[in-house]
Amino acid sequence: MTTTLALADPPRTIPVSASGACCAPLVREAADPQTAIEIAHVFKALSDPTRVRLLSIVAAHDGGEACVCDLTEPVGLSQPTVSHHLKLLVEAGLLTREQRGKWGYYSVVPGALNRLGVLLTDVTATEPTS
Amino acid sequence: MTTTLALADPPRTIPVSASGACCAPLVREAADPQTAIEIAHVFKALSDPTRVRLLSIVAAHDGGEACVCDLTEPVGLSQPTVSHHLKLLVEAGLLTREQRGKWGYYSVVPGALNRLGVLLTDVTATEPTS
Repeated sequence: MTTTLALADPPRTIPVSASGACCAPLVREAADPQTAIEIAHVFKALSDPTRVRLLSIVAAHDGGEACVCDLTEPVGLSQPTVSHHLKLLVEAGLLTREQRGKWGYYSVVPGALNRLGVLLTDVTATEPTS
Repeated sequence: MTTTLALADPPRTIPVSASGACCAPLVREAADPQTAIEIAHVFKALSDPTRVRLLSIVAAHDGGEACVCDLTEPVGLSQPTVSHHLKLLVEAGLLTREQRGKWGYYSVVPGALNRLGVLLTDVTATEPTS
């Protein structure tokens, strides 16, 4: 089982099929199925416009932290609905939640987003080797 | 209407609510609703493990380009199913498609993934200002 850094592995040649395919060879390792599931899970959390806005609004707050009481008005949704979306972002490892008295406070997990950013940027680093 | 680079705008203070909320202020602009829809659309394309693998496999090919004939075996799916997934990646602006004789060839769009990477990395750049 590899980690989510599998896409960032150094380039190496892996045959794409046993039949000696028609096309260009692989020049580095692609994401294995388990890694792809983990990556897709995080992207799924970001596949909803409301959750993108909520993450963005939390990140835009001073210190990258926001009270749930400040998040309902900007997205125009009820607190239970907003809390549901925030829960999915927490489960994806993009936010953390801390209860303080009456309110839940949400913080961006910088490392998680950075890793996704590096992953995506790395995927684009395709250089012809021939 | 802003572009998908809205999250990368320079920090500035925007009130989060008209009621003078309880919590920390915004220190930069959050993604507006239209931008969030556009971002979520791209993430939706990446919210499926098969599509993550296909994008990764295309990117891992020499020159960042692969024939559809080389993509069915690694993911263990029929060509129509693979073509459907690839179509969604093309529609999201992550791949381009070129027909050459019998086969379709898919290439990674480096700029699109880089923009997502920058966007995500930027979202994490939350610095306390007080």
